[in-house]
Amino acid sequence: MIDTRKLGTYRLNLIGIGTGNPDHVTAQAAKALNAADLILIPRKGESKADLADLRLQILSQVLTRPIPLAEFDYPTRDASGDYETGVNDWHDEIARRWHAAIAPHEPREVALLVWGDPSLYDSTLRIASRLGAETRVIPGLTSIQVLTAAHGVTLNEIGRPVIITTGRQLRDGWPEGAETAVVMLDGQCSFQTLDAERFHIWWGAYVGMKEELLIAGKLFDVGTQIVETRAKARAEHGWIMDIYLLRQVSK
Amino acid sequence: MIDTRKLGTYRLNLIGIGTGNPDHVTAQAAKALNAADLILIPRKGESKADLADLRLQILSQVLTRPIPLAEFDYPTRDASGDYETGVNDWHDEIARRWHAAIAPHEPREVALLVWGDPSLYDSTLRIASRLGAETRVIPGLTSIQVLTAAHGVTLNEIGRPVIITTGRQLRDGWPEGAETAVVMLDGQCSFQTLDAERFHIWWGAYVGMKEELLIAGKLFDVGTQIVETRAKARAEHGWIMDIYLLRQVSK
Repeated sequence: MIDTRKLGTYRLNLIGIGTGNPDHVTAQAAKALNAADLILIPRKGESKADLADLRLQILSQVLTRPIPLAEFDYPTRDASGDYETGVNDWHDEIARRWHAAIAPHEPREVALLVWGDPSLYDSTLRIASRLGAETRVIPGLTSIQVLTAAHGVTLNEIGRPVIITTGRQLRDGWPEGAETAVVMLDGQCSFQTLDAERFHIWWGAYVGMKEELLIAGKLFDVGTQIVETRAKARAEHGWIMDIYLLRQVSK
Repeated sequence: MIDTRKLGTYRLNLIGIGTGNPDHVTAQAAKALNAADLILIPRKGESKADLADLRLQILSQVLTRPIPLAEFDYPTRDASGDYETGVNDWHDEIARRWHAAIAPHEPREVALLVWGDPSLYDSTLRIASRLGAETRVIPGLTSIQVLTAAHGVTLNEIGRPVIITTGRQLRDGWPEGAETAVVMLDGQCSFQTLDAERFHIWWGAYVGMKEELLIAGKLFDVGTQIVETRAKARAEHGWIMDIYLLRQVSK
């Protein structure tokens, strides 16, 4: 825990801004941004340059008056040792940098823009808890909803459950008893480990952005196309974020 | 399938509007509503009177010009026979009523406001598919994100999966291998069937609305309080929508 006595009293507003389309911002998020007297913003260390620009584009579109920005650089995560320790140390260091960026401004309402929603595969809440400040979350669209909207498909079958999981988990096997799974954080097209005849896939990259790519079909028919499309897009943009929905076609 | 030849060519826009806070509406949803030349809106048959009013409140807040409304009444679902057949017949009948409401206007862009997101435990996409019209989905906040935001809690533990399920499913037992589950569509506080010592719960009703109720804690400590609070609120408002997140505290 950081010594926050010097920070005075402020509230940290973690504001979900959707998946890269400035029009994903809700009226609630726009109001929360405009009510801030300091906006905490990453300067570099974010390899996804398109996203950094989008953050500023959203601010220019939404703010009704100028608000000071407090910039910070993301540290590099030490991937040499134990995974969990590495992540914890990294979060500690980010929290220290937030503190250093915020403190001189003595703000009352600090806003931080979060891609997607702060609740889903996102570290912001965990980092924020290290500051000991009051925290408020403004929900934002997740890539799950943007993916299903783009494909015009429902997430669940009638009354049936859905699993949200990661590429790493999927590589350990299809979740027991599941019919439908959303896979996130998958850098390796882990659907290749599945029996392709048994699944339908709805895949999307850069969902909601102008670069959006969508492929859907039987995994057997489109799996290779997804792998190739993904590799090409990643090379072209220098980064990629993708997500997919898998549904068993038969037992 | 309905004979759509008389409908001419139009697009059906299914617009997610969040969970009852007019400020949940995204800029994209506001634009899509304003681009419509007809808004399809339920007149009665929706027992949740507060929600019907909210739909009109959202329109009055978002529309920059008057747009004609096409009203329809929800039919009653026949619950006497087989569940699946009953739901299918009900969806057929709703689609027929949409058709009857839309056709005389000969519109090009029809908008329909959907609570939450059209992808999650929602029939709108299935009903829309019966009309044979081009369909576009505008994603909206789900009650899942609004719940986690209100509690300031993450949906997942680091890199771990999450199950989205229903009260009915939960009554068949805790999902095998799961650590975290979101439970929706639960009219019976089905968490009462679980070993209360093993779970933490984050519960919310009317999430995002001014009537919002939140309770969190060890299920053992707060389970009864939730059951009582829910019954009282339901009696008071005449309806309730609630949702909760359950996490195992230990194996």
